[in-house]
Amino acid sequence: MKNEQQFLDLIDSYFVREHDFLQLGRGDDCAVLAAGNQYCVSSDLFLEDYHFRRKYFSAADIGYKALAVNISDIAGMGAKPVAFTMDLMAPADLDDAFWDEFFKSMGNLARQNDIVLAGGDISRADKLGVSISIFGVSGSTGFIHRTNCNHGDILFLVGDTGLARTGRLALEEHGLAARDTYPAAVAAHLRPKPKVLIGTLLNAAGVSSLMDLSDGLARDIPRLLGPDFGADIQLSADQLNSNVIAYARDTGLDPLEIAILGGEDYALLGTVSPFEAGKAESVPGFTRIGHVTQTPGLTVNGHPFTAQGFDHFSK
Amino acid sequence: MKNEQQFLDLIDSYFVREHDFLQLGRGDDCAVLAAGNQYCVSSDLFLEDYHFRRKYFSAADIGYKALAVNISDIAGMGAKPVAFTMDLMAPADLDDAFWDEFFKSMGNLARQNDIVLAGGDISRADKLGVSISIFGVSGSTGFIHRTNCNHGDILFLVGDTGLARTGRLALEEHGLAARDTYPAAVAAHLRPKPKVLIGTLLNAAGVSSLMDLSDGLARDIPRLLGPDFGADIQLSADQLNSNVIAYARDTGLDPLEIAILGGEDYALLGTVSPFEAGKAESVPGFTRIGHVTQTPGLTVNGHPFTAQGFDHFSK
Repeated sequence: MKNEQQFLDLIDSYFVREHDFLQLGRGDDCAVLAAGNQYCVSSDLFLEDYHFRRKYFSAADIGYKALAVNISDIAGMGAKPVAFTMDLMAPADLDDAFWDEFFKSMGNLARQNDIVLAGGDISRADKLGVSISIFGVSGSTGFIHRTNCNHGDILFLVGDTGLARTGRLALEEHGLAARDTYPAAVAAHLRPKPKVLIGTLLNAAGVSSLMDLSDGLARDIPRLLGPDFGADIQLSADQLNSNVIAYARDTGLDPLEIAILGGEDYALLGTVSPFEAGKAESVPGFTRIGHVTQTPGLTVNGHPFTAQGFDHFSK
Repeated sequence: MKNEQQFLDLIDSYFVREHDFLQLGRGDDCAVLAAGNQYCVSSDLFLEDYHFRRKYFSAADIGYKALAVNISDIAGMGAKPVAFTMDLMAPADLDDAFWDEFFKSMGNLARQNDIVLAGGDISRADKLGVSISIFGVSGSTGFIHRTNCNHGDILFLVGDTGLARTGRLALEEHGLAARDTYPAAVAAHLRPKPKVLIGTLLNAAGVSSLMDLSDGLARDIPRLLGPDFGADIQLSADQLNSNVIAYARDTGLDPLEIAILGGEDYALLGTVSPFEAGKAESVPGFTRIGHVTQTPGLTVNGHPFTAQGFDHFSK
């Protein structure tokens, strides 16, 4: 298997996509299960040396982020997380102080979001890893899916783009010393803030589609829009966090390219009809970044954007 | 952390055990979530070199067993599995033929059980690993919990004990050549059969408690009974599979000790009131192995049994 898509195609060839209990299938932020009321469910891996480095992630950072990235998938449905299960891969060399920090930090995040740990499994393993499955519910407005936009819809973002990528690049280069130079970027990579409340507000505001921005605008916008639509993006450097600008200047990179490639920002990305945008525009942090076109593909400030964003898998 | 219990205690200190959406909390085969109707949910790891060896597990065996052990947890609730999510840790060195066999085999098991793959995550990793979360529903009789027995209840088993342990020991010693000498034991380790139909029949028959036997009678009986009860077990060698007897004879081990220590049998272990046992006794494979006592601890054929069964974690 050369890339994630090959895995997904093979899986599709052997696993049904429709089922009485499955209201929304694979491919969105979460699946939706129903027996009476509906649950959305999502599952994410958080693996040492693939998703985090122990060199600059503290035990508390790891415990926090493993759960935060899962909560973000629930936010991407405009839903509220209620419970999760955790499968923990625990190397023998980590001491009790490590685990205390790890669970305390994760437990705090769970408490802040009023989520219960429902169960899981623990095993020895060579490297530290966490696999979490998370469950969410929605109010009367249901869940917000991907690929539900229309031509002319406003494309919007709530949260930063490119900031976590800046943090990751700076941490890889300078270790925790990067914290002094790019504090917001480092925080965005180590402790991303899932936007549950924003997601439920956008849901109530009637946006047409929504997802959490985990792999960067270049990869995630096509996933949001589906194969029939494209987007014209208008993005200027002064919309970016000053850490992104500073890092781009220090390294000779293009700040807009960092912002478009992004990755792990866990911002919310969505579309809303221009005729129903009033409520959504009043959601804190709502930023219009472009509009939906009838031609697939992305243009950024009028220029076609072809480079691929961050691919966790082929990395 | 020296053992699993230390992890569980630490987790309990940082994560709440009660929640509006949690009807049954951590510590049973599954948790039960409810928003309107109820789901039971469980999560299990299946990791290379910790839960399986690629030396004698084929791709098809791994794909099968990773899902089968999760289905078994649903069977342990007397429930029916409906959906699962899969987090896949995929080393780069496995070829497409491996993945085709892996998914085909898992997909067949999913189809046979009418379960849908609802979502998940895939990442590169150093070693092959699968983390599955599975969801189940029950009919009008609800879910069967652990620690719900009474003094005098019949302790019963449906399925073999010690057979999968025999298979694992023989495979570790002889590799796949063990298949010729102990075919049933090798099959029990590579391809355990989850007992969903049996579980639903036991549920309808009104048994008082039920669990899937994954860590052997010595460890799992106390988990089934809870801290207030013990069990007198009556078990004779002629109740064991002939492969267990043969392996014990060939290696000088005690067949009853293999049977009591067991591990990974995925049989169903439960209790039923002697006054309501009629229906349960007619379930295919129902075998009375003892009764519940008011004194905690186990006796086997009148002798106290103190050795600990198989502990996946401290292994």
